[in-house]
Amino acid sequence: MYKIIQVDGGICASEGFFADGVSAGLKLDGAKDMAFIYSENECEIASVFTTNKMYAAPIKHFKAKGDFKTNFLLINSKNANAMTGQVGVNDIDEIMLACEDKTNPIMSSTGVIGVRLPKQKIIDGIKLFDLTAKDSKNASSAIMTTDTFSKEIALNVTFDDGSSFNIGAMAKGAGMINPAMATMLCFITTDAAVTSSQMQEILDEVTTKTFNAISVDGDTSTNDTVILLSNARSGAYEKDAFRDALFKVMHFLALEMVRDGEGATKLVTYKVSGAKDDREAEIVAKALSDSLLVKTALFGEDPNWGRIASTVGASGVECCEEKLKISFDNLCVYDRGELHFDEEMEKKASIVMTHKKFTISCDLGIGKGEFKAYGCDLGYEYVKINADYRT
Amino acid sequence: MYKIIQVDGGICASEGFFADGVSAGLKLDGAKDMAFIYSENECEIASVFTTNKMYAAPIKHFKAKGDFKTNFLLINSKNANAMTGQVGVNDIDEIMLACEDKTNPIMSSTGVIGVRLPKQKIIDGIKLFDLTAKDSKNASSAIMTTDTFSKEIALNVTFDDGSSFNIGAMAKGAGMINPAMATMLCFITTDAAVTSSQMQEILDEVTTKTFNAISVDGDTSTNDTVILLSNARSGAYEKDAFRDALFKVMHFLALEMVRDGEGATKLVTYKVSGAKDDREAEIVAKALSDSLLVKTALFGEDPNWGRIASTVGASGVECCEEKLKISFDNLCVYDRGELHFDEEMEKKASIVMTHKKFTISCDLGIGKGEFKAYGCDLGYEYVKINADYRT
Repeated sequence: MYKIIQVDGGICASEGFFADGVSAGLKLDGAKDMAFIYSENECEIASVFTTNKMYAAPIKHFKAKGDFKTNFLLINSKNANAMTGQVGVNDIDEIMLACEDKTNPIMSSTGVIGVRLPKQKIIDGIKLFDLTAKDSKNASSAIMTTDTFSKEIALNVTFDDGSSFNIGAMAKGAGMINPAMATMLCFITTDAAVTSSQMQEILDEVTTKTFNAISVDGDTSTNDTVILLSNARSGAYEKDAFRDALFKVMHFLALEMVRDGEGATKLVTYKVSGAKDDREAEIVAKALSDSLLVKTALFGEDPNWGRIASTVGASGVECCEEKLKISFDNLCVYDRGELHFDEEMEKKASIVMTHKKFTISCDLGIGKGEFKAYGCDLGYEYVKINADYRT
Repeated sequence: MYKIIQVDGGICASEGFFADGVSAGLKLDGAKDMAFIYSENECEIASVFTTNKMYAAPIKHFKAKGDFKTNFLLINSKNANAMTGQVGVNDIDEIMLACEDKTNPIMSSTGVIGVRLPKQKIIDGIKLFDLTAKDSKNASSAIMTTDTFSKEIALNVTFDDGSSFNIGAMAKGAGMINPAMATMLCFITTDAAVTSSQMQEILDEVTTKTFNAISVDGDTSTNDTVILLSNARSGAYEKDAFRDALFKVMHFLALEMVRDGEGATKLVTYKVSGAKDDREAEIVAKALSDSLLVKTALFGEDPNWGRIASTVGASGVECCEEKLKISFDNLCVYDRGELHFDEEMEKKASIVMTHKKFTISCDLGIGKGEFKAYGCDLGYEYVKINADYRT
């Protein structure tokens, strides 16, 4: 058995990890725009990247290395180094020369697409790094773009025999509603004694239920990245405990991203059950959280269950109106062909929709497939941010 | 050879067809809300319906009839008769009793989902119809929902030997940006001597390049309908001429829908070429016209070609940044890996984006696949209309 508790320190909570953020002049307002994660020991690596075929230079650079260990990760905001071709990869190589005492240093970027990195500013920024700093707050602020708050968490897992390990993490972005910057980045450290292949298997599994439950929409970024580093310093590891803690870390950060969605005022869970299989449940849940109809109805606090039914029907999965059940929290608004949505029920449903958090459930009544997705509303603020972002 | 000219009369331009619109009290402001199309002769029918699995009662009612001819089509706005189960179909059967002197009368509906038809109002409305009226303007107004203008057109096709036929049509809705009402309806009459199966083949082909080039997004309606009626009164027909004229009619109405998209200020053509095949070109063109990133950039008149590249890459088709070319009208902003988007070019591109109509071209540089899709921008007005629509 094991106990999981939340601890301070974010990305630096794992033993032997250091991090900080500095201002290198990439953001014009002088805000922090470069961060590092450094480990005294070399780290095993697991990673998940965007499925976008125009994936950015830092991802090309990473993938070209094959299997490797690292002790240094450099991150910049404001410029995504995407659509920059081989030149963009060469720029990273040059920047990495400024980190030449590190083992296989790697880089991650987020920001505008199609502009070359300001190489000299970044090289000068690296000189500002203090590798003995453990300032996870600075680091998590430096990777922000349109985020309105920084996102970090750390957990400690202690076993009955007293041994323990830590997982720390930070993220930026960019839930379902935030395609402007498009990018979500997440960096996770652990001192658990876990190998690269063990981590990769668990990371893939957990990503499906966390970041992929919020971020897969039509606007998948060129830069989406999750990197998990382990330096094994604690000597402790157990698979179920690690999976459990990693899920909690990534679930928390995924919901933080939705909560910070551009202009979002509500966090909605789409709970789909009774689908033919889990895959069809996932298709429906994501269709609901992606739908402009549904998002704008949420913003207007309009309990328009017809739009939900229509979106389910349009998603292409096996379904029919005689088996569908739709609920807003515990209030069933449509029950397998029964039209019982009168004025009183509309009032009750409207009240549910005024809440900051609620659940929309759809039971398709076909099989045992289940999936939960997370989304938010779409209002004027979203249009404002995205119409004006680049210029 | 043949000559095509535009003529007056809309849906009534085809010989032997009558139409009108009346106010039956479904719309609370007294606006027209019921229309009919009547033909002295029985008509051959071709049709295309929504792929939404929650398709509405009028579509169930139509499909249940199998092969048939008709001389009467009843249309109401304000209530979609969707998600109303068998009760909704029975309601249509009862209403059709009030048209019992007609041959296989059929019905089409658009409006709110999940509310039963106000049956008595509709039956009373039928009594107001004047079957000798040829008022296509009234008819096309009566089928409007959030449309800001009615949409109709008629063409005459004359052959060298002096024989001729007409095609008339009206539509409502609901381009890519208008999922609130979700529905697009289009009714087409012709006096060409064409059979049901001949019409169906051509209608399917033309729909792909017109209504399906604007309307297939995540929010496919429960009620989308295209019905084409032929009474063969002219005695004239030739396949190429008919296809040509039908394309012109449907293309015009499709673009009218986009132009009338809720809150839309721009009509953008997405011209995709160089894809592996036509299907992949279609996927990219529709991904671009569906993308919130792209739509909001259009609204902001921001020539953010990076969002376009990212959307192409995220669409899943074969592509790579070294072969991609992006142009705004004739201005190439990204050329197969060359970053030449400087301030001067940004100014030029911004000027293109201030136009009411322009073309965004993407050449994937892979093969010979081509497709054109049509879309518009997304601004504050869209949110306003959709957040407040139902209540």
